[in-house]
Amino acid sequence: MFQNPTIAIVGATGAVGREMLAVLEQRDFPHREVRVLASERSAGSKLPYRGKHLTVEPLTEDAFGGVDIALFSAGSGPSKRFAPIAAAAGAVVIDNSSAFRMDPAVPLVIPEINAEAIEQTAPKSGTGRIIANPNCSAIILLMALTPLRRAFGIERVVVATYQAASGAGAKAMEELETQTRDVLAGKEPRPQVFHEPYAFNLFCHNAPVDPVTGLNGEEAKMIEESRKIWSDPGLRLTAMCVRVPVMRAHAQAVNITLSRPATTAQVRAALESFPGVRIIDDRAGNRFPTPLKASGGDDVLVGRIRLDPSQPAHSSQSTTTSPDDTPSVGFDLFVCGDQLRKGAALNAVQIAELFVARTTAR
Amino acid sequence: MFQNPTIAIVGATGAVGREMLAVLEQRDFPHREVRVLASERSAGSKLPYRGKHLTVEPLTEDAFGGVDIALFSAGSGPSKRFAPIAAAAGAVVIDNSSAFRMDPAVPLVIPEINAEAIEQTAPKSGTGRIIANPNCSAIILLMALTPLRRAFGIERVVVATYQAASGAGAKAMEELETQTRDVLAGKEPRPQVFHEPYAFNLFCHNAPVDPVTGLNGEEAKMIEESRKIWSDPGLRLTAMCVRVPVMRAHAQAVNITLSRPATTAQVRAALESFPGVRIIDDRAGNRFPTPLKASGGDDVLVGRIRLDPSQPAHSSQSTTTSPDDTPSVGFDLFVCGDQLRKGAALNAVQIAELFVARTTAR
Repeated sequence: MFQNPTIAIVGATGAVGREMLAVLEQRDFPHREVRVLASERSAGSKLPYRGKHLTVEPLTEDAFGGVDIALFSAGSGPSKRFAPIAAAAGAVVIDNSSAFRMDPAVPLVIPEINAEAIEQTAPKSGTGRIIANPNCSAIILLMALTPLRRAFGIERVVVATYQAASGAGAKAMEELETQTRDVLAGKEPRPQVFHEPYAFNLFCHNAPVDPVTGLNGEEAKMIEESRKIWSDPGLRLTAMCVRVPVMRAHAQAVNITLSRPATTAQVRAALESFPGVRIIDDRAGNRFPTPLKASGGDDVLVGRIRLDPSQPAHSSQSTTTSPDDTPSVGFDLFVCGDQLRKGAALNAVQIAELFVARTTAR
Repeated sequence: MFQNPTIAIVGATGAVGREMLAVLEQRDFPHREVRVLASERSAGSKLPYRGKHLTVEPLTEDAFGGVDIALFSAGSGPSKRFAPIAAAAGAVVIDNSSAFRMDPAVPLVIPEINAEAIEQTAPKSGTGRIIANPNCSAIILLMALTPLRRAFGIERVVVATYQAASGAGAKAMEELETQTRDVLAGKEPRPQVFHEPYAFNLFCHNAPVDPVTGLNGEEAKMIEESRKIWSDPGLRLTAMCVRVPVMRAHAQAVNITLSRPATTAQVRAALESFPGVRIIDDRAGNRFPTPLKASGGDDVLVGRIRLDPSQPAHSSQSTTTSPDDTPSVGFDLFVCGDQLRKGAALNAVQIAELFVARTTAR
């Protein structure tokens, strides 16, 4: 059935839902039918797809008959309620919400990194199953770090994020635009989606802050989900998650301590060989990753690859004096990725492609 | 003469120059006269001051006769040429450019931190002298870190910056505004001041990148100037400096490794007791420092004071299990400061006040 599946998109009118449709179309994903589901309020509206229009159907308990793959991106509440129903009806659910990510029975998958996790949890007989799509910031970070972990090991990570409006959905993107127009017109900003003014401003991530640890929800997700995806419960990672007035791609300043020393050239080579990562690192031209360069693209962009001057460099074994040839465990990177694509819709569709490939291979 | 000095502002029509005038007025700085100097192009224009208007005079070699204090903020070129002339004419020059900051004969001063540096270099007999005002990002960072260094020692710092348009001057602020209007009107952004589109985008700092170290100029300044201000040439600090579409205050995500373990409560207490630092750290309300809250104010704002979960916590000596009472060497902070005020104009005027206070005390 996965060779010609019926696909449902739940939350199809949202920013990620629309991007899921775009990614299916761009990747020419094989299917019998695409059904677009959303709340009663959006039912009846039309979404463009392959030169035609799909009509949005209401999300109900009966909506999953005959569905092979259900891509959920309607928030945690609808996922908790409807994902088990879709799975019981036989669908493979790929859920973009945080509802099931830390459930030990649910694989949390970035296809380039841990596709094998799908095999490690078996579906119950006669039912479908749920696969979780990780947090966008975790996906973007791990895409850049996994090749370095495989080649050199990772001892510790310190990351600061620069997160776009898109991570909070279409309404947040509208708020950024509307509020910016207001401020440019000399009006007071009127925050509605976020708790702080957004136009020409930034603020720590809007997810609730744990009163005990002081971590906000986004930071906790980056830490916990990275540990699960890498199967490394002792991973040493700290994050400061910040919302910036950018429309749709996230950036990250990443400081890494490797387990084994490497040269800058070796770090660059490891990154270059990893699928889904593209290097933009032109020191002479001051050209590096930016959210705009990442927007609409599939690759996670990495640049500013350089020795961390706060870490002692290991004495070079070669006779050259170039810092790029000096081994060190300390490196800094700057990373950008489209939050709506690799951070959400693309990764979900790539997980769906794993199921199609498995069926085809049999 | 410092009790009733004649003050010259060089580069008075720029973003920092205008802020210097505002700070002099707000602090009711004692003076006989304020002269405003700028390039020939701006000569004759008027600047508001104490309910009147000052007429901009052209910056020439003869402009410094009778000047006691010269506040320079016209860029490195004019500082290199005219600051020695002003000093030779007997003025105390407080220079906001990078021209003299790393000169061993020139003190680099943040009054709350190293006012004594002024005493350590003597002016040549019969002439004035040059005092350098540090880089804005270095000032904001060290205001937050100095109380922690004094109380617990600092082993290593990893900082990522979120820098406003104002750091590149009035033209950069105009570019952000104009380009944002254009993008909202559906037009293509046309970068002129910066090398990348700025509206709803961000990019690594525009200062040139060292081809050998990979550090951009702003990052190098943060590292070198922090070492000089703290008299700590071995300071372990790495920085990723990024320009964000914010108008006038800088933010920083700061990860610290202390030399000696402290509790979160002790870190907070040290910060609270430091002049010029104000804590905004409301976990329940998700209220923390933002550029807007820092804009127009004198204080450096610090929040998100919390244990770094990537560092092992030291076993608590008390019976409580609250993380805030658990000693650790690892902490994360979020810091905001007005780049034009404490990052530039205010710090320069505070240095001038040191000279007034010295004269008054004699």
